[in-house]
Amino acid sequence: MKTYKVAFVGKRGHLGYAMRGMKLLKDSAVAVGVTADGGDDPKQVQTIVEGNTGYPVPVFADYVSMLDATTPDVLVVNGAFETHAAISIEALKRNIHVFCEKPIALNLEDLAAVEEAYAAARPGTSIISMVGLRSEAPMRTAFEAVRAGVAGKVKMVSARKSYKLGERPDFYKKRESYGGTIPWVGSHALDLMLYFGGATDFEHIYAFHNREDNHDNGELEMCAVCCGRLNNGVITSCTIDYLRPQAAATHGDDRVRVAGTDGVIEVAEGEVVLLNKDGRKVLPLLPARELFCDFMRHISCEEEPPVTAEETFALTRACLMARDFADTL
Amino acid sequence: MKTYKVAFVGKRGHLGYAMRGMKLLKDSAVAVGVTADGGDDPKQVQTIVEGNTGYPVPVFADYVSMLDATTPDVLVVNGAFETHAAISIEALKRNIHVFCEKPIALNLEDLAAVEEAYAAARPGTSIISMVGLRSEAPMRTAFEAVRAGVAGKVKMVSARKSYKLGERPDFYKKRESYGGTIPWVGSHALDLMLYFGGATDFEHIYAFHNREDNHDNGELEMCAVCCGRLNNGVITSCTIDYLRPQAAATHGDDRVRVAGTDGVIEVAEGEVVLLNKDGRKVLPLLPARELFCDFMRHISCEEEPPVTAEETFALTRACLMARDFADTL
Repeated sequence: MKTYKVAFVGKRGHLGYAMRGMKLLKDSAVAVGVTADGGDDPKQVQTIVEGNTGYPVPVFADYVSMLDATTPDVLVVNGAFETHAAISIEALKRNIHVFCEKPIALNLEDLAAVEEAYAAARPGTSIISMVGLRSEAPMRTAFEAVRAGVAGKVKMVSARKSYKLGERPDFYKKRESYGGTIPWVGSHALDLMLYFGGATDFEHIYAFHNREDNHDNGELEMCAVCCGRLNNGVITSCTIDYLRPQAAATHGDDRVRVAGTDGVIEVAEGEVVLLNKDGRKVLPLLPARELFCDFMRHISCEEEPPVTAEETFALTRACLMARDFADTL
Repeated sequence: MKTYKVAFVGKRGHLGYAMRGMKLLKDSAVAVGVTADGGDDPKQVQTIVEGNTGYPVPVFADYVSMLDATTPDVLVVNGAFETHAAISIEALKRNIHVFCEKPIALNLEDLAAVEEAYAAARPGTSIISMVGLRSEAPMRTAFEAVRAGVAGKVKMVSARKSYKLGERPDFYKKRESYGGTIPWVGSHALDLMLYFGGATDFEHIYAFHNREDNHDNGELEMCAVCCGRLNNGVITSCTIDYLRPQAAATHGDDRVRVAGTDGVIEVAEGEVVLLNKDGRKVLPLLPARELFCDFMRHISCEEEPPVTAEETFALTRACLMARDFADTL
């Protein structure tokens, strides 16, 4: 792999994915600049990036001046959620690859603008969002088993995302800066639907959410449910919540169940269980992958992308449509 | 309890609930007549009822002549699914209590007619459908724990019903005689939503179903998903399918997860797990109840009903509305 220059905006969300990836990629990925927005301190981003990559990294006042000065190959976007779209567009206009926290936009208009910028960018320019759940060992194990046909033709995918609420920064308390629980937490569940369902988009999606009993977290929704159908006929459902008790062993309870014509495969509590004509079997776990490394190998033309730009757009659109629908109820 | 005369139509579905109950009730419930419809042989019903109750039971050519001749206090309805409504109405007109297989009607018009007959019947006349899942030990244990407040205020209920397909009689293959997988299998899941959600009705429900890959079972849907909101704000979702592999240890995989402000309680594989501020705990199982006995104790004014007529109507309506909505997609 040639050497790529990587710049960073912000530290909200899953900057850790890029940090772990940068360490593994070593000299193939060089950190060239950091900035922040939304009132966050760019020096904190600098500390994290320098600590993880070992490179001294200059701080910039804003992302435009950083892009101008550093001309990176890749931009990692973890700034304020409401600026994901504008920052991604600015990068795509310069044919810079984008590794962006999900959701990449907080409304359908912003999403359309990102799609336009992507269409106008030099062919080969990539944008994906940080759907890291795909890369975790249990999900990967289940996915490879499904792809190998152990469950037959997939008919139904259902997922669970349950998080501890804990203490949330203020930006979670406003829809305009948070985007909503379906896009933020639920995007993982909807991504699992597309991923395991083997579809390129949703055909229909319905959803409900509820922001009562949210411990003074303003507009944050405590729970949500969705059901829908993918464009290949697979039907889907999920639950999404911040109701996981503080005393639980792990922060998240991430589950998926894939029911097919020849079997059912289920990921729960880190275990993958297959039930088919041969009975019940716990599958040995494949190693986890690193989403950022897979993304970098893709842009260097070594591998298929871990998730495509088109899937990223479809996922974002489904999340926003589900949230907007739930708002009407 | 005084002695009640009980008559029987048919043996489709859960006649076993009434048989187990009759044995336990002994002399308080006397079998007085059997018949069948939909082309089923009434002699088979006679064999089952006589075998379980020990009473010699006359066979009647049809339910009207049986009701005329035996004037029962209670009618157990397990005939053809499409005649549940008409038979129940005939009984209610005579102020006979009805213990009917679910769903009590296969379309909204028939349901409205049953509701009308119920409203016109002598006060105290009961009709309930066979939502026996409520009475099973794990569900009852979870319900009593939820009612005791261990999960706080209930916010979300999600359920799973997964069955082995096996060999199905021909009446399953036609919508007009089967009613659909959401009303037949899904009624249990929707009932758990009402039961654990502590609501009297659904406010909204959306659903998808799919009848492809159904192994030559005609119009039978192989799987379905629903999501909705109850009239107290609790949000709900479920999956429903016939995709459980033949090699699975049990016929059904019945699950429910109740997430509240103070904890999450989950029934899966016969176990009840509570997660709250005190950590994770497997709850000791309460004994199962018998739905038919509880129903009989209710009509003899000894107890609250195990499920009310109003809940029965709300459940049936929600199932039919979900199915009809799914048909439009």
